[in-house]
Amino acid sequence: MAGNTFGTQFRLTTFGESHGVGIGGVLDGCPAGLFIDLDFIASEMARRKPGQSKIVSQRHEEDVPEFLAGIFEGKTTGAPIAFLIRNTDARSKDYEALKAVYRPSHADFTYDAKYGFRDYRGGGRASARETAARVVAGAIAKLILQQWKISVQAYVSQVGHIALTDSYKNLNLALTETNIVRCPDLQKAQAMIDLIGETRKAGDTVGGVVSAVVCGVPAGIGEPVFDKLHAELGKAMLSINAVKGFEYGSGFAAAGMKGSEHNDAFVPGKDERKIVTATNYSGGIQGGISNGEDIYFRVAFKPVATIIQKQLTVDTQGRAVEMMGKGRHDPCVVPRAVPIVEAMAALVLVDQLMRSGMRLQA
Amino acid sequence: MAGNTFGTQFRLTTFGESHGVGIGGVLDGCPAGLFIDLDFIASEMARRKPGQSKIVSQRHEEDVPEFLAGIFEGKTTGAPIAFLIRNTDARSKDYEALKAVYRPSHADFTYDAKYGFRDYRGGGRASARETAARVVAGAIAKLILQQWKISVQAYVSQVGHIALTDSYKNLNLALTETNIVRCPDLQKAQAMIDLIGETRKAGDTVGGVVSAVVCGVPAGIGEPVFDKLHAELGKAMLSINAVKGFEYGSGFAAAGMKGSEHNDAFVPGKDERKIVTATNYSGGIQGGISNGEDIYFRVAFKPVATIIQKQLTVDTQGRAVEMMGKGRHDPCVVPRAVPIVEAMAALVLVDQLMRSGMRLQA
Amino acid sequence: MAGNTFGTQFRLTTFGESHGVGIGGVLDGCPAGLFIDLDFIASEMARRKPGQSKIVSQRHEEDVPEFLAGIFEGKTTGAPIAFLIRNTDARSKDYEALKAVYRPSHADFTYDAKYGFRDYRGGGRASARETAARVVAGAIAKLILQQWKISVQAYVSQVGHIALTDSYKNLNLALTETNIVRCPDLQKAQAMIDLIGETRKAGDTVGGVVSAVVCGVPAGIGEPVFDKLHAELGKAMLSINAVKGFEYGSGFAAAGMKGSEHNDAFVPGKDERKIVTATNYSGGIQGGISNGEDIYFRVAFKPVATIIQKQLTVDTQGRAVEMMGKGRHDPCVVPRAVPIVEAMAALVLVDQLMRSGMRLQA
Amino acid sequence: MAGNTFGTQFRLTTFGESHGVGIGGVLDGCPAGLFIDLDFIASEMARRKPGQSKIVSQRHEEDVPEFLAGIFEGKTTGAPIAFLIRNTDARSKDYEALKAVYRPSHADFTYDAKYGFRDYRGGGRASARETAARVVAGAIAKLILQQWKISVQAYVSQVGHIALTDSYKNLNLALTETNIVRCPDLQKAQAMIDLIGETRKAGDTVGGVVSAVVCGVPAGIGEPVFDKLHAELGKAMLSINAVKGFEYGSGFAAAGMKGSEHNDAFVPGKDERKIVTATNYSGGIQGGISNGEDIYFRVAFKPVATIIQKQLTVDTQGRAVEMMGKGRHDPCVVPRAVPIVEAMAALVLVDQLMRSGMRLQA
Repeated sequence: MAGNTFGTQFRLTTFGESHGVGIGGVLDGCPAGLFIDLDFIASEMARRKPGQSKIVSQRHEEDVPEFLAGIFEGKTTGAPIAFLIRNTDARSKDYEALKAVYRPSHADFTYDAKYGFRDYRGGGRASARETAARVVAGAIAKLILQQWKISVQAYVSQVGHIALTDSYKNLNLALTETNIVRCPDLQKAQAMIDLIGETRKAGDTVGGVVSAVVCGVPAGIGEPVFDKLHAELGKAMLSINAVKGFEYGSGFAAAGMKGSEHNDAFVPGKDERKIVTATNYSGGIQGGISNGEDIYFRVAFKPVATIIQKQLTVDTQGRAVEMMGKGRHDPCVVPRAVPIVEAMAALVLVDQLMRSGMRLQA
Repeated sequence: MAGNTFGTQFRLTTFGESHGVGIGGVLDGCPAGLFIDLDFIASEMARRKPGQSKIVSQRHEEDVPEFLAGIFEGKTTGAPIAFLIRNTDARSKDYEALKAVYRPSHADFTYDAKYGFRDYRGGGRASARETAARVVAGAIAKLILQQWKISVQAYVSQVGHIALTDSYKNLNLALTETNIVRCPDLQKAQAMIDLIGETRKAGDTVGGVVSAVVCGVPAGIGEPVFDKLHAELGKAMLSINAVKGFEYGSGFAAAGMKGSEHNDAFVPGKDERKIVTATNYSGGIQGGISNGEDIYFRVAFKPVATIIQKQLTVDTQGRAVEMMGKGRHDPCVVPRAVPIVEAMAALVLVDQLMRSGMRLQA
Repeated sequence: MAGNTFGTQFRLTTFGESHGVGIGGVLDGCPAGLFIDLDFIASEMARRKPGQSKIVSQRHEEDVPEFLAGIFEGKTTGAPIAFLIRNTDARSKDYEALKAVYRPSHADFTYDAKYGFRDYRGGGRASARETAARVVAGAIAKLILQQWKISVQAYVSQVGHIALTDSYKNLNLALTETNIVRCPDLQKAQAMIDLIGETRKAGDTVGGVVSAVVCGVPAGIGEPVFDKLHAELGKAMLSINAVKGFEYGSGFAAAGMKGSEHNDAFVPGKDERKIVTATNYSGGIQGGISNGEDIYFRVAFKPVATIIQKQLTVDTQGRAVEMMGKGRHDPCVVPRAVPIVEAMAALVLVDQLMRSGMRLQA
Repeated sequence: MAGNTFGTQFRLTTFGESHGVGIGGVLDGCPAGLFIDLDFIASEMARRKPGQSKIVSQRHEEDVPEFLAGIFEGKTTGAPIAFLIRNTDARSKDYEALKAVYRPSHADFTYDAKYGFRDYRGGGRASARETAARVVAGAIAKLILQQWKISVQAYVSQVGHIALTDSYKNLNLALTETNIVRCPDLQKAQAMIDLIGETRKAGDTVGGVVSAVVCGVPAGIGEPVFDKLHAELGKAMLSINAVKGFEYGSGFAAAGMKGSEHNDAFVPGKDERKIVTATNYSGGIQGGISNGEDIYFRVAFKPVATIIQKQLTVDTQGRAVEMMGKGRHDPCVVPRAVPIVEAMAALVLVDQLMRSGMRLQA
């Protein structure tokens, strides 16, 4: 019970269902005096919203948050920031047919098992629409990180079998937002777009990977032993709908490596940072605490469960039935997941900065 | 600050350093009336302890927990269970030389950056010796899970380049504990042992993967939306020393799959469970809530950072120096990590069972 | 930072300011399947709302909560319940004059000291209007308590120098709601009403006491050692605006008593309860855990700080100034505090019942 | 379940029973680099320990904490500080007779009701011996407060019918520790000592009040709306064994006052503090946040439940029996409660300072 809150000192609680009044959140612990840039929040929401391109869900939501509290004369007051994003294009009747059926690899069955009762309109609370609230809060977190000159950038690094092999260091991340799949390698981007298009036509869906890099985190951020910086990042990412895996730094590849190749030698730094590392297999985190290097990680997403194909399943009585997917869903979730990954990373970072005693510069 | 507690209702707080008085913990929220099987706890500790075989650290710790509170006449009372494992073979002088040096890929530098001060004897608080406390608490968690007929089994599935390709379904997990590397494929096990032996001789270390499977979790366990069952498992695993990645169910492979292959069709069940799935790419969890199928996941470990080779690094003043590794360390961490992975999984499961309102049967 | 959440498993987060969009809350952890009786919630809100009688603030708010999430087909789904009560009669211009002045015994100065910035329209976040959200959540908590046959009843036991001397046992609590001051002793009630009327005419305010009794709590509810049932009740009450003190059972009078008079002898019970106490100085709680007897406590409220008289104070620059109170405020807060005290008690009880593993009967 | 932790960022978890191995605690979130003055901690423990004078329990415990973790070369490291106070004079056989009997106004019955099982040796976990751990942690908190020039002073202001009528402002608190009852009014102190002596001779016990004042807290400390500074203080005090009530500032007397007398006029200050109040009925806290004035409060304690007289009660089967009190108990708890009240206040203040972003000066 009560698992709808994320963070300790900078703390987001979300609420809402895909086909109810709307989706919203309460962000508690935001420092006072922060100027809330509504245009920036809107631009972040635009990156997540359905209908933004031909390769995402054609549901049309404007996704403009109405702020209900915590902002006065354009600035935060230190009081909780509450906001609501009303559902405007929720066609509940699409779902009436699914009332008595458990869609494969959706949360219909498990919600019924847990609660004995289910809002069967779309995913209800399990819908990825909930992540809209995360993006609003994440945008505010980014405004705080700007003060610390910390940037969070995510991009699509894999769609189906098409994967980037380059490290983020060899990519031009400025190209990420130049294409609708949000991949900084333009050639691969086109292949991904084509693959998603074909997949959609086949009534199918496809998985992918979002990679992210955080630059500018000072050394010393993170809490041993259970609340390690990467453990919090991992939990944050794994809480996003459809995520199946998380790795940071060398990740799963580390399992195949020797210590003599994996160790990051410390070397004297050049600028303000007196101590840097020659390589960065550690992914910017050692012992759960940032070391001042770039923090980078990868997040695996499964293919969306709703497919426009005939599928075998059971009804709520456990009887075998056949069903046909309907609704306006994403053939591939990763293009829209990019801002969500960034948002969750930003929430973790602000929380950990605050836990380390770092405060907003007024 | 204050990141040494794990769990919400079933809550472990650990303390201690590798070269201080000892390592210990306080387990709060344990139901009253549970018989504490000290032999079982000892056997779990034996699986983790150093010196247990030729392929692990030769430090000799008996690692017998002294229980300080919470147990009366052999049973839990509902009060916090406190325990202490004294350090008996801590040779602090091994570390005197390292006082002014930052060991590569250790937490020496980041602890100094965070706290301005460091217990330089071994890893101090960052030492993997802290996980001894987790195994004690995890053993108690397993005693609770036994009442629910839930089992947690982990095994080594990769060491360096030697990896199991079979699913846990095609392995005989009863063989896991028959060999010192804890791999249920005996041929691969021998290859792993040989590789670790060679690696040790070269003064080097090697990474690996621990896989785990949890059987018997009833449908309906887990908390949307942030405290999803797999998000809590992920955080738990990522909080273990040296872990670089976590995936569950189809994991990173899901990124390359189509929805039509990945979806787990629901089918009528045979026994008590009326509804089961034909496949289990979901890894037993849908929407963050268990669906009654096996929960399985993989955890990637980096190679241990301490190598007995010359390495470049800096001293605490930021000057380049050369250092030579010393001490009695593990050439490969995964054999001893098996019980730690199980312990953390057990802690998560009991906490989530309790959050779901499931209580100990007296 | 982040102090706007109350409870652990049954958890209310509130938001909103007195002169912004509105006041609202998110209630997380509410069991699924609870029928939400909107009429009951409205009736509870009516007991708290301004303008309900001649002895309370004449601000006219309808205070009807709009439910934003967590309810489907009239029942809770297990998802967070979110609600918003819009401000409809907020006259911000009343407050413009007070922008640069710190009102005595208000939170203007301390909010500025804390946040460096203040929503100067009314109390902003510090306004007692925030308690509207508590009453909504408390009403839902009462619906849960009904299932446990637990009742929470509060009443006014003191206004200024007029105080009830009888124990709740000798009062007819059914009379509480028959008069506008909510005092079950009708003679005293009239005297209180008169006193408040005179006080209002003098542009002054007066303090009071709210007493409460909780019947039907089974033995065994409450958490040693820090989260004792009465410690949670005390925190809950002290978090209500204007509260200066809390006592339960014998309270401060216990300081003057001997153990031989204060001890509650256990005696065999008559009905289902096998063991009861002959007296109840313990106030239904022993060692922080309920013993099955009535739980009763008293809450002291200071006189409202806004008086319609000339007062000395300072401006935000620290210069001495004279100010004159304005606005539509309560001459005495206790009549409207009765449902707030009940609401907070209900929130504590449901949280503690859930922590004890007691669940909603479907 | 899991109620043995206090605080959010500066967080104490206690463990232990009166007749087990010992009592201890883990203090997480303590800043690194704090010099731990063991003599000071010992002197605080001496103020709480039994056997210190003729008017307290004659149990003889040395109560010297053994530090298990978190301190290196005399200073805190940022890791959790763990400590154990062994029980050395626990005569369990005193209690064997009480195994099957519920002592009146003790927690025997409620623990059985909650846990179905009880450590019947003394109070077990419910024993006031648990507060020894609070005093250790409180002493560390005081060392931190010293850096902020914040002092916490408590004293006995009432024993039975003998009560101080003066405010702390008119008392010489330096006299508190000059007498065994810890009352700064020496004449009243003697009367209290005499009363306790007579009470003991009669085999009886008597209640009392501890008053406390905190000086030096800067304006702006405390968290609206639920975690108000006084709400946290109230919970802290109410969690101490035998406490029945808490009031701060004007307290219950406020109920009888008019706003025109109770309001604290702001006036220009003289020294660093630009804005002060002419009176301090607010008790140094407005809207839950400190205003820079002295914070003062009162805590009511009931008479100790163990009396050396014949009492009626029931056995664990619910049958009426007669019992006779035994053991070495306090005739009046308040002299020993003085350091406990201070300790809990210090824990609250450090936690709230840290939540406000104030850090240890290295």
